[in-house]
Amino acid sequence: MLNPNRFFNPNPEVRNIASELYKEIKDLPLICPHGHVDPRLFAYNKPFPDPSALLIIPDHYVFRMFYSQGIPLEQCGIIPLDGSSYEKDPRRIWKLFADNFYLFAGTPSGIWITAELEQVFGVKEKLDAQNGMDIYDHIRNKLVQEDFLPRPLFETFGIEILATTDFAADTLEYHKIIQKSGWKGKIIPSFRPDDVTNLLHPAWRKNIDTLSEITNISITSMPRFIKALEKQRTLFKSMGAVATDHGIEMPFIHALSDMEADAIFERALKGTITRNDARLFTGHMMMEMARMSCDDGLVMQIHPGCLRNHNEIIFEKFGPDKGADIPLKTEFTRNLKEILNTYGNNPSFTLVVFTLDETTYSRELAPLAGHYPAMRIGPAWWFHDSLQGIIRQRERVIETAGVYNLVGFIDDTRAFPSIPVRHDLARRIDSNFLAGLVAGHIIDMEDAHRMNRALAYDLSKQVYCKDVT
Amino acid sequence: MLNPNRFFNPNPEVRNIASELYKEIKDLPLICPHGHVDPRLFAYNKPFPDPSALLIIPDHYVFRMFYSQGIPLEQCGIIPLDGSSYEKDPRRIWKLFADNFYLFAGTPSGIWITAELEQVFGVKEKLDAQNGMDIYDHIRNKLVQEDFLPRPLFETFGIEILATTDFAADTLEYHKIIQKSGWKGKIIPSFRPDDVTNLLHPAWRKNIDTLSEITNISITSMPRFIKALEKQRTLFKSMGAVATDHGIEMPFIHALSDMEADAIFERALKGTITRNDARLFTGHMMMEMARMSCDDGLVMQIHPGCLRNHNEIIFEKFGPDKGADIPLKTEFTRNLKEILNTYGNNPSFTLVVFTLDETTYSRELAPLAGHYPAMRIGPAWWFHDSLQGIIRQRERVIETAGVYNLVGFIDDTRAFPSIPVRHDLARRIDSNFLAGLVAGHIIDMEDAHRMNRALAYDLSKQVYCKDVT
Amino acid sequence: MLNPNRFFNPNPEVRNIASELYKEIKDLPLICPHGHVDPRLFAYNKPFPDPSALLIIPDHYVFRMFYSQGIPLEQCGIIPLDGSSYEKDPRRIWKLFADNFYLFAGTPSGIWITAELEQVFGVKEKLDAQNGMDIYDHIRNKLVQEDFLPRPLFETFGIEILATTDFAADTLEYHKIIQKSGWKGKIIPSFRPDDVTNLLHPAWRKNIDTLSEITNISITSMPRFIKALEKQRTLFKSMGAVATDHGIEMPFIHALSDMEADAIFERALKGTITRNDARLFTGHMMMEMARMSCDDGLVMQIHPGCLRNHNEIIFEKFGPDKGADIPLKTEFTRNLKEILNTYGNNPSFTLVVFTLDETTYSRELAPLAGHYPAMRIGPAWWFHDSLQGIIRQRERVIETAGVYNLVGFIDDTRAFPSIPVRHDLARRIDSNFLAGLVAGHIIDMEDAHRMNRALAYDLSKQVYCKDVT
Repeated sequence: MLNPNRFFNPNPEVRNIASELYKEIKDLPLICPHGHVDPRLFAYNKPFPDPSALLIIPDHYVFRMFYSQGIPLEQCGIIPLDGSSYEKDPRRIWKLFADNFYLFAGTPSGIWITAELEQVFGVKEKLDAQNGMDIYDHIRNKLVQEDFLPRPLFETFGIEILATTDFAADTLEYHKIIQKSGWKGKIIPSFRPDDVTNLLHPAWRKNIDTLSEITNISITSMPRFIKALEKQRTLFKSMGAVATDHGIEMPFIHALSDMEADAIFERALKGTITRNDARLFTGHMMMEMARMSCDDGLVMQIHPGCLRNHNEIIFEKFGPDKGADIPLKTEFTRNLKEILNTYGNNPSFTLVVFTLDETTYSRELAPLAGHYPAMRIGPAWWFHDSLQGIIRQRERVIETAGVYNLVGFIDDTRAFPSIPVRHDLARRIDSNFLAGLVAGHIIDMEDAHRMNRALAYDLSKQVYCKDVT
Repeated sequence: MLNPNRFFNPNPEVRNIASELYKEIKDLPLICPHGHVDPRLFAYNKPFPDPSALLIIPDHYVFRMFYSQGIPLEQCGIIPLDGSSYEKDPRRIWKLFADNFYLFAGTPSGIWITAELEQVFGVKEKLDAQNGMDIYDHIRNKLVQEDFLPRPLFETFGIEILATTDFAADTLEYHKIIQKSGWKGKIIPSFRPDDVTNLLHPAWRKNIDTLSEITNISITSMPRFIKALEKQRTLFKSMGAVATDHGIEMPFIHALSDMEADAIFERALKGTITRNDARLFTGHMMMEMARMSCDDGLVMQIHPGCLRNHNEIIFEKFGPDKGADIPLKTEFTRNLKEILNTYGNNPSFTLVVFTLDETTYSRELAPLAGHYPAMRIGPAWWFHDSLQGIIRQRERVIETAGVYNLVGFIDDTRAFPSIPVRHDLARRIDSNFLAGLVAGHIIDMEDAHRMNRALAYDLSKQVYCKDVT
Repeated sequence: MLNPNRFFNPNPEVRNIASELYKEIKDLPLICPHGHVDPRLFAYNKPFPDPSALLIIPDHYVFRMFYSQGIPLEQCGIIPLDGSSYEKDPRRIWKLFADNFYLFAGTPSGIWITAELEQVFGVKEKLDAQNGMDIYDHIRNKLVQEDFLPRPLFETFGIEILATTDFAADTLEYHKIIQKSGWKGKIIPSFRPDDVTNLLHPAWRKNIDTLSEITNISITSMPRFIKALEKQRTLFKSMGAVATDHGIEMPFIHALSDMEADAIFERALKGTITRNDARLFTGHMMMEMARMSCDDGLVMQIHPGCLRNHNEIIFEKFGPDKGADIPLKTEFTRNLKEILNTYGNNPSFTLVVFTLDETTYSRELAPLAGHYPAMRIGPAWWFHDSLQGIIRQRERVIETAGVYNLVGFIDDTRAFPSIPVRHDLARRIDSNFLAGLVAGHIIDMEDAHRMNRALAYDLSKQVYCKDVT
């Protein structure tokens, strides 16, 4: 069902070149240096329960669309926090999904799910209201087979390395189980300290206590907080981590004096901080994180510019990550000045910047990455990790920063079985993008092969995994 | 003269698919749920006076371009408010138009007028300095014929429903004349209360008096103002209205306490308001309008982000709507939070959001519409209602929000005879856009036909006219 | 090596039309009304020293990219201000360039340099690590030949007029030498007073003294400052200048009262100004410059929205123009209101606006230029003077403002030998852009030829050189 030339330009010349370029990179291993797959999958290696639990309930891209069309989240199997009723029958949830799958026409979710159904599960028809339950049964039958367990799938997918995203106070017990199991799959943690660097986090005080407990450092002051974080970074690194990650509402970054930082931290311990304290503190912690990265070599990633939980009714009823996070205008030129002036000329520092504000591609990010040795531009992120979104990024960034100041493709997904189709889509888009440049006599095939390999594999390998053996 | 494949991709594969898709929707009736056609046209059904009065003098898209090239507005037949002289001879105005028509090459006005001349008036040549006056005579001869009267044209154009835009204190007398006339053409009003919700409107006080008078409610306080608006909404609904419309400089929306709102309204009655009072009041009235829409079911439309009358010299000499309204950066994520949190989960509310800031398509509007059940994204508006403008919107919005969170095409015009060519352009662009997706194996023909029909007819019918019989 | 159809759409229909359109304009003379070529080149007409001094060391587009990849600027031959060591051997610098030339694949620098090597120097191979030093020798041998001196190259390139950019207190001695030499090449100055209108310029006080000295006007007050500037403008005009140019961080423009302006100027002379004083003063000087332009007819150009010298370490070590200038979000609708209301309706005023914020093309600049007779939109600038950058501008601007409110292509370069290839790239892009419109039946060939000629030659000639004989 999937056309071998899908996503290529219909112009025969471009299509042929794209196909030739794609052939050379399509089977390269997958580097996944940032994402949200649950490490328990590989620690326990248990079968996935059912098609709905696998493909619908954990995917906010999917139920978000249904909600926008008036379908209550309860009917999608999303569990209300207040204990009220919701749909528990995976078959009824799947029925809803199949009936409404046409809503995804032209969206990346539509592309990914269609490809996943065929390439992972061998489904030969387009999902619709008629064939929905047959396809459900077909997938359910696959899921009980040995080669559909998480570890065999990881191997089938050709994943070379997969980073999870983990809380600063995590003990990494599932990573330890995986490493002790003798299984060869490379699953590594990433250090994401948002829940302790954001003083407004509802559980901040509790998170500090957890961090105290697991580090054996009683966090009673700013210096001890820093020490605890450094200790955890060491743990993460010893478990294979190559990067940290920071989700911040705005990329405001500015070092406070020790006295200022200490004072805010003490107010936070007493529960008397203001909004502005929290903003300053997060900005300061970004400088601290950059400083630590210069020391321990962890790549620093920032994911800014999202107003989380925009819909408070949904947040209160169902919690976070329910498809109601909405991007904000974002500014980098002024906001990154201090961090780049302080650490951006340092050869042992790497800062990967993501954005949800596409206007910053050509205006701010490409000029910055085209100058500072430390800075790299992350791939088109989240809403923009789509066919047109990736093309827009390539067109706006490469002319100023070249290809070699990017980091290639990153899937950034919590939907484990979608990983290969996401990489495949990106590889097809880049092959086609470069084929357009070749057909337009802007680059030649030698350049195109090199650039294509860089985007598909070499760059993420070099930036994130240069020390991984 | 018009090529049957105009506006389609020159790639033969895409062109053929586009042509096939277009064939299926090109003759669907036209739904026009928002626009600025004068209802008097259909109340009196008199012949249009002459080609210049029809095509040039009322069209600020046209004379704006001439003015930008140094041609005084007086020469275009625009009447100065101070009684000074202007060109009254329609033939001399048309001559100027024909001589300078080349300025419109590559603009939507150029496309619309060319198509209108051929499709509505049967002109077989491109308008230029040579043939200008022959074409003038040709059109003038048509305008006196019976089938070029407004009502017959409405029928020829295949318009199913046409909404006008009307002042909150309008008595809808022309709509009443139309309805009483027995003519079957469906002309409905829309409720646009800007002139009373914007406290800075120069005639605000006078408008309040008019509203008092026609509603028989003496508007001496905020509650009575609200009551008068509710009464007028009831009148509009009884005359067939399906929507309200709100032109606001910034989409700042926030409910005041009753006490705050009352106090500002009292200051307004006394003529002692500040700029900030006006800003807060408009923001508050948007919440009131949303509340009323939940009750009466009128679709709420907002058209924000335009600095009106940027050129004060032109405004003072000629008045508003002279081509000097300039867009502003616009923000929706934070600004729409309160209205969407309050009413956006309500199944009886529909909010259609338009924008002149294209950066908000992928960053804000598509994520919002892809989540909130109440929200829909309006079509590419005003300056962006163009070939590239519509494509940009489709490419930035559909991947995140899908097709079914849009409202299809809306012509939004005061130029009545351009309505069919505007719809035709949009239908061609969408057919071609979808053909590209089919040729790229992103969607199949079944999806494409469904999406194309949705964009051409089904969506605007469903969103606006679900209760119209 | 260069394909005759390079940069054209691979669709055969579009390619053929593009080729036909291009043929008609490719040999038109080059109008260069704004750029940064050093007038000493033509005053002295000496041979260029070596390929690295010609192509690498003066080009911050080139060494910026190397620096971003971790190559120290010293190795690129950039001279540290502190007298520390740097690479002096042009062959070693060229070797570095050749080894890393692949970094420019897909960038305008890659396109320009490749074309320049073939078209200006007759190099028949793609520069790479293998052939690098052979190509070096080849170019070096050319540079000593008579026809590779600056003046013969100027003639070979077909340049009709070339404007340099000169300090307000310049004596224009090199321009005088050129004019006295009897050589026919038209090299004209442009008046760029940033170094005296920006009160924060580190050498402001010294610059004022220089201006006093060369004008023989002792600048002890604001009126005398204005008088000195007027005198210099007269000098520039007498030497052929057609334009002024203003690099301002933000396009904030607002006239102060005489008293306010005088007070700030006095504080500046005493060295006691604030940041806000400087901002207000620059804004005021823009109004003064517009006023003078209405009198003397010099076209006013503004180049706003760049944060200069973002990397302070690089600035302190190497000085300005080292590839670390980063664009900023920019606003025009409100910022240009006063200057356009005051002078924008004046037929003797022309304001050419450039931007580094592409979001302003369709939102602000096209609507403004599509209304105000005085305003024109400059070409895609700096980072955006690229294949995709130019296309994006054309697509976002022409539909609203038409072609005739632009100024055509401007190379804006300090790299003299790149001038013809830059114009050639722009002419190819426009030919191809217009060919797409023809193939899509949006315009016809008559329109396309006229628009293409306008963009390649007529517009810059009309806007800047209407009085040049």
